[in-house]
Amino acid sequence: MRSLSEELRPAGGGRALASAQTRTEVGIVGAGPAGLMLAHLLANAGIESVVIDNRTRAAIEATHRAGILEDRNMRLLVESGASDRILRHGSKHAGIDLRFGGHSHRIDFSALVGAAVWLYPQTEIFADLADARERNGGDVRFGVTDTRLVDPAGDRPAMSFTDSDGHAREVRCEVIVGADGSRGVCRSAMPTARRTFFHRAYPFAWFGVLVAAPPSAAELVYAHSDRGFALISQRTPSLQRMYFQCDPDEDVSRWPDDRIWDELQARVRGADDFALREGPITDKSVLPFRSFVCEPMRHGGLVLAGDAAHTVPPTGAKGLNLALADARILADVVERAIRTGDREVLDEYGPRALAGVWRAQYFSYWMTTMLHRAPDATAFDLHRQRAELRAVANSAAGATFLAEGYTGLGSSSG
Amino acid sequence: MRSLSEELRPAGGGRALASAQTRTEVGIVGAGPAGLMLAHLLANAGIESVVIDNRTRAAIEATHRAGILEDRNMRLLVESGASDRILRHGSKHAGIDLRFGGHSHRIDFSALVGAAVWLYPQTEIFADLADARERNGGDVRFGVTDTRLVDPAGDRPAMSFTDSDGHAREVRCEVIVGADGSRGVCRSAMPTARRTFFHRAYPFAWFGVLVAAPPSAAELVYAHSDRGFALISQRTPSLQRMYFQCDPDEDVSRWPDDRIWDELQARVRGADDFALREGPITDKSVLPFRSFVCEPMRHGGLVLAGDAAHTVPPTGAKGLNLALADARILADVVERAIRTGDREVLDEYGPRALAGVWRAQYFSYWMTTMLHRAPDATAFDLHRQRAELRAVANSAAGATFLAEGYTGLGSSSG
Repeated sequence: MRSLSEELRPAGGGRALASAQTRTEVGIVGAGPAGLMLAHLLANAGIESVVIDNRTRAAIEATHRAGILEDRNMRLLVESGASDRILRHGSKHAGIDLRFGGHSHRIDFSALVGAAVWLYPQTEIFADLADARERNGGDVRFGVTDTRLVDPAGDRPAMSFTDSDGHAREVRCEVIVGADGSRGVCRSAMPTARRTFFHRAYPFAWFGVLVAAPPSAAELVYAHSDRGFALISQRTPSLQRMYFQCDPDEDVSRWPDDRIWDELQARVRGADDFALREGPITDKSVLPFRSFVCEPMRHGGLVLAGDAAHTVPPTGAKGLNLALADARILADVVERAIRTGDREVLDEYGPRALAGVWRAQYFSYWMTTMLHRAPDATAFDLHRQRAELRAVANSAAGATFLAEGYTGLGSSSG
Repeated sequence: MRSLSEELRPAGGGRALASAQTRTEVGIVGAGPAGLMLAHLLANAGIESVVIDNRTRAAIEATHRAGILEDRNMRLLVESGASDRILRHGSKHAGIDLRFGGHSHRIDFSALVGAAVWLYPQTEIFADLADARERNGGDVRFGVTDTRLVDPAGDRPAMSFTDSDGHAREVRCEVIVGADGSRGVCRSAMPTARRTFFHRAYPFAWFGVLVAAPPSAAELVYAHSDRGFALISQRTPSLQRMYFQCDPDEDVSRWPDDRIWDELQARVRGADDFALREGPITDKSVLPFRSFVCEPMRHGGLVLAGDAAHTVPPTGAKGLNLALADARILADVVERAIRTGDREVLDEYGPRALAGVWRAQYFSYWMTTMLHRAPDATAFDLHRQRAELRAVANSAAGATFLAEGYTGLGSSSG
């Protein structure tokens, strides 16, 4: 294994290099779950990497994101040696509630498919993976600027950036993994003529709040109502996450706490005595809603992973799971590409990942359209949605099909 | 039982009646499957009825309509004594093919849910039921004109019409059943303030053809393609029914046979050797596409049944089945209302029927949106649809959920 800190001499004689050059086997742009998990798995296989991210560690740790992990991704975290904190600090959820027509209807994942999901905030997963990298001597650089890919399709691609201490760097790689999210530089480095962007916009978004209160329910409640969708989620015994469908251009300043509670309570109110436990709202934000897939997922020495390659609406809780699935598949493919020196092995990645990506796109779209109120919805559509929810909840087959999608058992990726 | 032909004397002294008045227990407007099946079931229970229809018997027999019967409706036809011709001349279909991504994927109803459907054209069902009425001395009057409901909400509702021989008639009833389809007089007799019409329009229709050729497949083929949906159906060994998605205002005169075959073949062409067996096209028509439900289904002495009460898009093959389900439920409710003299018993009908109606609306909408190309569909949507079709075809739960909907096992009506 080459040293991570090996400085390269300027190539040739006369040309002065502006950047200090280093080499690594795999350059990873983005220190989110996809990037850090991949770096961790590669290190387990004896492959070195450099991870860069333009955010500081503190900024990432302060970004609240959902955290529902499929069983297999919980196991990936634990069995790869990244961390077993999820077993102690995560919550195993054996089902969800579909709430419609005034009542809650439980979809019992354990009984239906023998699987569960784990509530474990993405900030915790980030901390686990960042700690594991630090513990294992991994090279992760937060707070970089001016990130640029150099000749990503060529034989010697490189990541060019300015370190947090202000020094210009260039890291040459065998492979560059773009895991820098939907607004990063890597997605746009795919040459227009060689890739297809698939996308769909939605005429709504989610208004998300963090609430200092005890949980209102033991598991996630997906609520259909004539006023639109609401999701009652949990975080810790004293902090909860709730969402309600809103306009994409909703202004959070128009929503004082009282108005938010009125809206949330109205959307979950039913014929039973279910009501939300209220508390101070400590965070308000509008979450965008879109579907996106880039195909192929590789060009030359560049592969995309996680949100850089695909975005799902949050209804199916699939974004984080797809990122970790990408890392799992990529670790295998990248290791073999580097061991064999045959970069064409990378072509196996897309087809293996995309089956699961499109399965998750469908599942996320299904959950979204079953539960949200479209702006042009008629009374017919609301009745039809309730009939769909009844059919799914009352049929063992329908409930199993939903459970397969939610727990990831329905995915053929790997 | 009162005589069907009992002529009433003009009530009171001085007022001359324009119409010859008769009485019956149940007046039924519409001699389609809902109306005739109800008359047949009521006669079995000793309840008399008069059925009227503004079409001639020959005109009804010449109207080609789909004919997919759920097992329970096949049994209703046979066990009620209407006819067992379906067992000899119908075809039992134990599944359908979903065709997408270049291949056919069979949904095996028998293996998945232990049920099947029966291909038996609606014109045959009509003939069976009309023959049964004739055999049993039922009063069915075809080719009437000027149909009008007299005081349908009152205590003594009546059907007013001109018989095919030109005589004005008025038949007083205990109950009037409106089974005269989506453009009949009965639906519009529901007072605006007392009912809700739920509806949805679709931005496409079906171009239907009758083809003189042998079958191209043993069972129905539901084909998804980038060009839009196509359905390959059967009728007899020498006559087939095929459809392809078109614009709602498509002009059949713009479609010579060659163009139709090019379009149909393109929509089913795949990686296998499946191709349609061509032949002379003997009928071309554009079938409208809409969803509709009227609630409640009763007002005073008037109840609605079949298409008069609800319309489904044809994709789920549910229209005929819902009509027969209405007749089955109505026979029970109407018999008890008449036996007890308590018309309020009729209020049981709607709630019993509507659960199955909305279940079928959802199923029809699901099949429609999974298989059709929306005018604003992006490449994302076509990929997402194929992912949905793959998920349904490859998951025993997904395929079972579809089979439950298609065979009617998922319905809670009754």
